[in-house]
Amino acid sequence: MKKVAVIMGSDSDLPVAEKALEVLEELNIPYVVHVYSAHRTPEEVRQFAEGAAENGFGVIICAAGMAAHLAGAFAANCVLPVIGIPVGGGSLGGMDALLSTVMMPSGIPVATVAIDGAKNAVYLAAEILAVGDEALQQRLLALRRAASAAVLEKDKKIFEKFVK
Amino acid sequence: MKKVAVIMGSDSDLPVAEKALEVLEELNIPYVVHVYSAHRTPEEVRQFAEGAAENGFGVIICAAGMAAHLAGAFAANCVLPVIGIPVGGGSLGGMDALLSTVMMPSGIPVATVAIDGAKNAVYLAAEILAVGDEALQQRLLALRRAASAAVLEKDKKIFEKFVK
Amino acid sequence: MKKVAVIMGSDSDLPVAEKALEVLEELNIPYVVHVYSAHRTPEEVRQFAEGAAENGFGVIICAAGMAAHLAGAFAANCVLPVIGIPVGGGSLGGMDALLSTVMMPSGIPVATVAIDGAKNAVYLAAEILAVGDEALQQRLLALRRAASAAVLEKDKKIFEKFVK
Amino acid sequence: MKKVAVIMGSDSDLPVAEKALEVLEELNIPYVVHVYSAHRTPEEVRQFAEGAAENGFGVIICAAGMAAHLAGAFAANCVLPVIGIPVGGGSLGGMDALLSTVMMPSGIPVATVAIDGAKNAVYLAAEILAVGDEALQQRLLALRRAASAAVLEKDKKIFEKFVK
Amino acid sequence: MKKVAVIMGSDSDLPVAEKALEVLEELNIPYVVHVYSAHRTPEEVRQFAEGAAENGFGVIICAAGMAAHLAGAFAANCVLPVIGIPVGGGSLGGMDALLSTVMMPSGIPVATVAIDGAKNAVYLAAEILAVGDEALQQRLLALRRAASAAVLEKDKKIFEKFVK
Amino acid sequence: MKKVAVIMGSDSDLPVAEKALEVLEELNIPYVVHVYSAHRTPEEVRQFAEGAAENGFGVIICAAGMAAHLAGAFAANCVLPVIGIPVGGGSLGGMDALLSTVMMPSGIPVATVAIDGAKNAVYLAAEILAVGDEALQQRLLALRRAASAAVLEKDKKIFEKFVK
Amino acid sequence: MKKVAVIMGSDSDLPVAEKALEVLEELNIPYVVHVYSAHRTPEEVRQFAEGAAENGFGVIICAAGMAAHLAGAFAANCVLPVIGIPVGGGSLGGMDALLSTVMMPSGIPVATVAIDGAKNAVYLAAEILAVGDEALQQRLLALRRAASAAVLEKDKKIFEKFVK
Amino acid sequence: MKKVAVIMGSDSDLPVAEKALEVLEELNIPYVVHVYSAHRTPEEVRQFAEGAAENGFGVIICAAGMAAHLAGAFAANCVLPVIGIPVGGGSLGGMDALLSTVMMPSGIPVATVAIDGAKNAVYLAAEILAVGDEALQQRLLALRRAASAAVLEKDKKIFEKFVK
Repeated sequence: MKKVAVIMGSDSDLPVAEKALEVLEELNIPYVVHVYSAHRTPEEVRQFAEGAAENGFGVIICAAGMAAHLAGAFAANCVLPVIGIPVGGGSLGGMDALLSTVMMPSGIPVATVAIDGAKNAVYLAAEILAVGDEALQQRLLALRRAASAAVLEKDKKIFEKFVK
Repeated sequence: MKKVAVIMGSDSDLPVAEKALEVLEELNIPYVVHVYSAHRTPEEVRQFAEGAAENGFGVIICAAGMAAHLAGAFAANCVLPVIGIPVGGGSLGGMDALLSTVMMPSGIPVATVAIDGAKNAVYLAAEILAVGDEALQQRLLALRRAASAAVLEKDKKIFEKFVK
Repeated sequence: MKKVAVIMGSDSDLPVAEKALEVLEELNIPYVVHVYSAHRTPEEVRQFAEGAAENGFGVIICAAGMAAHLAGAFAANCVLPVIGIPVGGGSLGGMDALLSTVMMPSGIPVATVAIDGAKNAVYLAAEILAVGDEALQQRLLALRRAASAAVLEKDKKIFEKFVK
Repeated sequence: MKKVAVIMGSDSDLPVAEKALEVLEELNIPYVVHVYSAHRTPEEVRQFAEGAAENGFGVIICAAGMAAHLAGAFAANCVLPVIGIPVGGGSLGGMDALLSTVMMPSGIPVATVAIDGAKNAVYLAAEILAVGDEALQQRLLALRRAASAAVLEKDKKIFEKFVK
Repeated sequence: MKKVAVIMGSDSDLPVAEKALEVLEELNIPYVVHVYSAHRTPEEVRQFAEGAAENGFGVIICAAGMAAHLAGAFAANCVLPVIGIPVGGGSLGGMDALLSTVMMPSGIPVATVAIDGAKNAVYLAAEILAVGDEALQQRLLALRRAASAAVLEKDKKIFEKFVK
Repeated sequence: MKKVAVIMGSDSDLPVAEKALEVLEELNIPYVVHVYSAHRTPEEVRQFAEGAAENGFGVIICAAGMAAHLAGAFAANCVLPVIGIPVGGGSLGGMDALLSTVMMPSGIPVATVAIDGAKNAVYLAAEILAVGDEALQQRLLALRRAASAAVLEKDKKIFEKFVK
Repeated sequence: MKKVAVIMGSDSDLPVAEKALEVLEELNIPYVVHVYSAHRTPEEVRQFAEGAAENGFGVIICAAGMAAHLAGAFAANCVLPVIGIPVGGGSLGGMDALLSTVMMPSGIPVATVAIDGAKNAVYLAAEILAVGDEALQQRLLALRRAASAAVLEKDKKIFEKFVK
Repeated sequence: MKKVAVIMGSDSDLPVAEKALEVLEELNIPYVVHVYSAHRTPEEVRQFAEGAAENGFGVIICAAGMAAHLAGAFAANCVLPVIGIPVGGGSLGGMDALLSTVMMPSGIPVATVAIDGAKNAVYLAAEILAVGDEALQQRLLALRRAASAAVLEKDKKIFEKFVK
């Protein structure tokens, strides 16, 4: 199976990134983690992006805050799907990171998920890898059914708690 | 090759959707187009989404404006990658469509592109299909190089126009 | 009397929903509570909505956050009045939930109240049920008068505290 | 059948209000139209609101822009359901009218629809009147089915136009 | 000297209002304090506003949050200068209260100060009363000079602390 | 009667300022008009502000756009009431001008009216001058009554047009 | 004198960039113009930035819209002052470009001017070059005096037009 | 070497300003610190700005919150580069300070950095001073390399922690 790269723009983004890693473990998808900054280590970003396809990566996930250029910088240097997680929590609640990540110019897409949406970044990566991998698709469907069942379980408890 | 479905929430979104179709033609990716509304035809949305994988679709692209639930409704009913195009132009310039599309809850990702970013939705779909398709990946790389060359061509003209 | 359904998109919305239940108790309006997610349990949402009128419901109240599609999903599947409570508290303070709930396309209205406005959702539901129920209308008027009197009571204390 | 009152804060809101009147005609719901301003004619607002229930009104629809207090002023003076249409088009695109209409304090709800959502204001009013009127509920269901069929008709044309 | 009325929409606004009272005491301006709600006690608002001029008031200060209609309701019922303090702290940080207070329609002005700007509301009221009161104007000028001197005092300390 | 000064930050603000002048003429209040910029002519701003009271001015109205510092610069240099009109129409619809005008620090208030609210700036100025001028207060009350009557006149026409 | 580089992210930004060139001509500052895209020609951006200092450039001005990464990409690859012009006009009025340009992480500053503030970008560049160039500083002061005189000239005309 | 002036609008901005001072110490750039308010001490602002160039200052850094006019007031009174730090943390998270600082009118630029971006203000000041100071430019390049190495050091640790 192709690997997923999880890149964070700063080690302060680790709490967000770790939520992504949990889901990668849960889905049993191979991955590596890096701290690369679009501004402080642009050369490493370029090199990683350019070599990513032939190094066995299928999807690149980038988490960055503020004027979040990280996902865009990866997207500019490869044609793998790049998923951007806008990291929130600053002065503007992540609106800056969201707009910097999602409003990309034509030709260089970034697949943007919700502010701090690290788990969804991985589910999306898994859905992408599953396009050519029926087994993974079945695993994702099973997870959906489990999530649905968990909601209905909670529904049952809350319904009964308040029924008169 | 797996097909791409382009779904618009209303036929008023056709001008946005047509920009997507141009790129699909350019990339020679098979596609179908539908007008389905998350609110007016929820049953058709559900049926299309549930059957999409076995009907040969690899990616679903949804374009919708205002409280744009269309991409989320597709994402809720399949595990294919769903790409959301927030359609702009209304009272709030598309901020409503952007937030309604991108801020999805955990477990149900939507890969969101820029407001009215129909071309990027298709480039992203192509990048997704190319994860398992080296030839498509090469075509995307060639397009990138062509886009880069086009910028440099314009650069040359503008540089010379203003050089003294 | 017709019943009110209070639906929350996640059990994490319970603190908001419970404020609604208090008012339902105070007004002596019959109700049920459910945890249904537009994205994780779309089928249960559809079934509940489609059967709501004949199951004796008069109004459906939905509380959801982020890209809050829950009220819209109910509104799409029935012609009962659906009241949406945008749940706040996330990265964007509930602006995402507000716009996702209120900016509905033509034909599928959602009666939106303030961010976290659970009490007003119930007062609105009661006003709706009271259109054909003079006794309930009188109870609501009495509550208004009591609320007015309570303000004037506070006014008296504060006026006197600061008068010289 | 109870009547619907359509109140606009200024005669400049007439283009928005007229869209509401079309739907009222289509649904055959009795209505009156007024220009009353929360700020320029507060006394008329109060009088109309206080007498609305006994004058045979079931729902009050208010359209106003900017610091849109009109719906709130009606809501403060009666316990009928009051529906607020934030009128857009000014400097802030209607965000001012939306927040002024929807963020009501506890006890005085306004059922807010989308910016310039005049048609939905009437559909919502009709859903409210239909809670105790099975025939109207059936008419609304028929409209929904017609709207759904219209979407599928458009879908068919667009699908065929682009199929290859 | 004419009196200032400080009106708060809810007793929960008292912490904001008390900052206003401190400045009124400091400036020795006579005042009264009331809790009146535009929505819960509209009649008291109207009566107070209509009688304010002949009851010796020169300026009315209103503090309210969310869809803050209080200042507008006073402004609609008298031609005294009405100063609006948008109260912050809710889901939207006070942006809702700011827009609801400041974006008034033509003919009914509200003199709006900053979110939670209770002190400035009183300084503004004092400036208004001072238009016809040279002694008060001199007191305000003296306060300005004192504030300026206080800044320069702090400047001196900080300058010296960091000078090398 | 004290005079009103209408200051615009640029002659491009003249269309907004002229709406203010119309009302000043209508109310028969003496005024002067100036183009002074907080940034391009700071010395003239300071001199005018410092001498304004003894030169017979009672209120200063400032209209400026973008990072609108004009009203704040006047407020910093005198203790007359300063009314700020945020001028709209730029990239951000006037939100920049609104926040730059209204969010003043403690001690230096600016009485802010709506974006492009030039007429209300003058009505507010008139209300301020009328605090010590019963005749002006009566003129303002008469204007209110006329505005109210004009609304009711329009109401009558629209009511009758749509009555059946 | 050191040169100024004016870089635009797309030739569609030329109308904005040309306003910058006018001021460079007026100030007689040597410059070059380029169309380089952070995403389509990242290598050219890097090369230009890395060599800029030794190629005689003193300041780099970047104009870009949407998720405007151009200025940040230059700033990441050199230690010359980089001035960012957020280009407006899209769905969000340039708020996306503003936040993407200004909210840079620590260590990599971008000197951001107003949305579409091309002229100010050059005035700022000139002020930077003038830190070590008394003659240029004098020219800038002369320009300021001329701008001030032009305002006062307009003031005179408008004052006299409206004086009575 | 020319000096840097760090001006804060209030001593409550000291925590932000101190981050600037740390970097000035680290870079060994001479500086002074002042508390000057555009509104409370406009005369001191003007005098400092007018004399700054001949008193040996090369750059002025201003930190202010809310309707942040400080940087603009300095920029209006000198032709030195003025860097504005919008101070965050208030009701609107610093959006008010950002827009008040960055949206300057033509002719009076303020080089704006991120909300609370005190460190970048100094790095930018250093880049400006380094335009004519090769040694400082080399020191800045060395700092960049060190920052880059620090990221890669962290990258190594995190990569290894999560590698399997």
